[in-house]
Amino acid sequence: MPAQIVTVELRERSYPIYIGRDLLADPALLNRCIPGRDLLLVSNTIVAPLYASHVVAALGARRPVEVVLPDGEAQKSLSVVARVIDVLVANRFGRDACVLALGGGVIGDLAGFAAATYQRGIAFVQIPTTLLAQVDSSVGGKTGVNHTGGKNLIGAFHQPSAVIADTRTLESLAPRELRAGLAEVIKYGLICDPEFFAWLEGNLEALLAGDPAALAHAIRRSCEIKAGIVRRDEREQGERAHLNLGHTFGHAIESATGYTGWLHGEAVGAGLMMAADMSQRCGWLRDADVQRVRRLLERAGLPLRAAEVTPAVARDFMSIDKKAMNRRLRLVLLRDIGRACVTADFPPSALEATLSAHFGEHR
Amino acid sequence: MPAQIVTVELRERSYPIYIGRDLLADPALLNRCIPGRDLLLVSNTIVAPLYASHVVAALGARRPVEVVLPDGEAQKSLSVVARVIDVLVANRFGRDACVLALGGGVIGDLAGFAAATYQRGIAFVQIPTTLLAQVDSSVGGKTGVNHTGGKNLIGAFHQPSAVIADTRTLESLAPRELRAGLAEVIKYGLICDPEFFAWLEGNLEALLAGDPAALAHAIRRSCEIKAGIVRRDEREQGERAHLNLGHTFGHAIESATGYTGWLHGEAVGAGLMMAADMSQRCGWLRDADVQRVRRLLERAGLPLRAAEVTPAVARDFMSIDKKAMNRRLRLVLLRDIGRACVTADFPPSALEATLSAHFGEHR
Repeated sequence: MPAQIVTVELRERSYPIYIGRDLLADPALLNRCIPGRDLLLVSNTIVAPLYASHVVAALGARRPVEVVLPDGEAQKSLSVVARVIDVLVANRFGRDACVLALGGGVIGDLAGFAAATYQRGIAFVQIPTTLLAQVDSSVGGKTGVNHTGGKNLIGAFHQPSAVIADTRTLESLAPRELRAGLAEVIKYGLICDPEFFAWLEGNLEALLAGDPAALAHAIRRSCEIKAGIVRRDEREQGERAHLNLGHTFGHAIESATGYTGWLHGEAVGAGLMMAADMSQRCGWLRDADVQRVRRLLERAGLPLRAAEVTPAVARDFMSIDKKAMNRRLRLVLLRDIGRACVTADFPPSALEATLSAHFGEHR
Repeated sequence: MPAQIVTVELRERSYPIYIGRDLLADPALLNRCIPGRDLLLVSNTIVAPLYASHVVAALGARRPVEVVLPDGEAQKSLSVVARVIDVLVANRFGRDACVLALGGGVIGDLAGFAAATYQRGIAFVQIPTTLLAQVDSSVGGKTGVNHTGGKNLIGAFHQPSAVIADTRTLESLAPRELRAGLAEVIKYGLICDPEFFAWLEGNLEALLAGDPAALAHAIRRSCEIKAGIVRRDEREQGERAHLNLGHTFGHAIESATGYTGWLHGEAVGAGLMMAADMSQRCGWLRDADVQRVRRLLERAGLPLRAAEVTPAVARDFMSIDKKAMNRRLRLVLLRDIGRACVTADFPPSALEATLSAHFGEHR
């Protein structure tokens, strides 16, 4: 299969997403996508041994300086960004330098934020190696790090120059990571594409088995949907908030568990279930559709409740979440499969019942 | 005098600069300019006791949370930004919160960067209380902090919602701070307005004496010039670099002395002298014009050389400065009084001679 290209249309900041197998074995592509002479490659101890040599070999004389971080969400902090910037300064990289983010969402968000703030913004290229990063976090320019008070509370909008999604890298991905990524894929169907949701119902086993054609289709469709939304609402003044379906619940799980234990995609998967459940409690989603959501998430092997977090703690973390405006909590909910909405106009009892059903020891 | 208004035209991010006496005693103006319900006032121990109560009283029920920092450039660091963000998180401020920067350039740059990165960008209003901040740092959206390796190496472009420049606040300013601010005012004449430069030659004593009408004119003209340049080149792809006249030399002084000893405007003043001197060594500026620059800077009481920094150390710090592209040093120099240019095409000997003449013990 030749590489497929999805373009994120943002006028002078437009950029291509390349999707295909063995893209990292294509030096011409890498050299075309990566600008600048001074390069910083940011990766982690899991991914770097597998793929950094491909990237470095392709770049020839433009040998990148490498920063290899420990794996895990705990790295997504302001202090680690400061260390990445220390390396940029120590190497005297100028405004024309480029940061390469080779890894999953943590690496992309962190390296992207370093690129966003070094000298008020230098170029960066996303080379996502997890399904979650390929379908979501590497696209759209949200960069940032966590604060102990909440996820992604510190960050910037900074679009990459290119995204290179090599589906071959998914073959080394732990099954749990693949399942976590599927939560974000399912999200796209839920927010705006019922046909895609139905396609996922029909092809979930192929995706779980790592079928290359199925994965490429799921990634391309996810990127197309996200690119369209980002084009229409780059700064999340409106429609882009739909992409946060499941995320306010999910962030509460991640924050309450200290970003350990739950993968981001797993928390989003549970959050999707909560959003569907709450939408039904609001009278918007039919019970049969809630069951379709539940069934698909279960088939994907995703956890659907957070027993270790109490409803009260979850409520507390939701109130600091970015989607809370004027202290009146706004949530992304579903009017139908394929139709998300943002609203603060829901019965408080629906939220409380949802929290009670999905958090805490009892069920 | 009624308030004068200069508008920075940036489409949906356009904003007004209000210039006038006793603006902080005008609650209607403050309430019109400051959006949001949740407010964070960032100031320092010098300015807060003088003016914070005016701002707080004007805002009535919208009582700001206050962060009062020690005075000085040392505060302009990533760790202090992190502390400001801690306060925003601790108060659970949402995306509709607003940061008020009450103080000089350090406070504005630091508070602006916190606003730029909290939840990927919230509103902020600049209330500059030094001449330097009123004519330069509060206008144009450059925010950021220093790194031990160089000045302003970490930052973001983030435009304020409004700038409120109350010239009454200059009456409490130390004479040394006023003189430092005049360096940036003189810069505007040098880069693009020979008539304004001549006006400054004719009105310097009035400015030094704190004459309100003279100060208001100098501030308005400076803001008009800067607003025009920022409108044409917000992200410093070209013309905006002219505003860095004197700054590459000046940043080297500040970095080499650890941001202590020299005020930013003082370093810029010395940098202007070095740029003029080097322009003459390149054969671009007439000796008589160099003398006009020297005479005006001397009358403003600004130091013109940095004896405590060796030429070699200065050269080292200049190479990491943001204006260094591709490791080939680009400098803003003068073709004439009122005509700046950015160039990497200068005889290396002209730079070396300039450094030798203005840095180090001998002269």
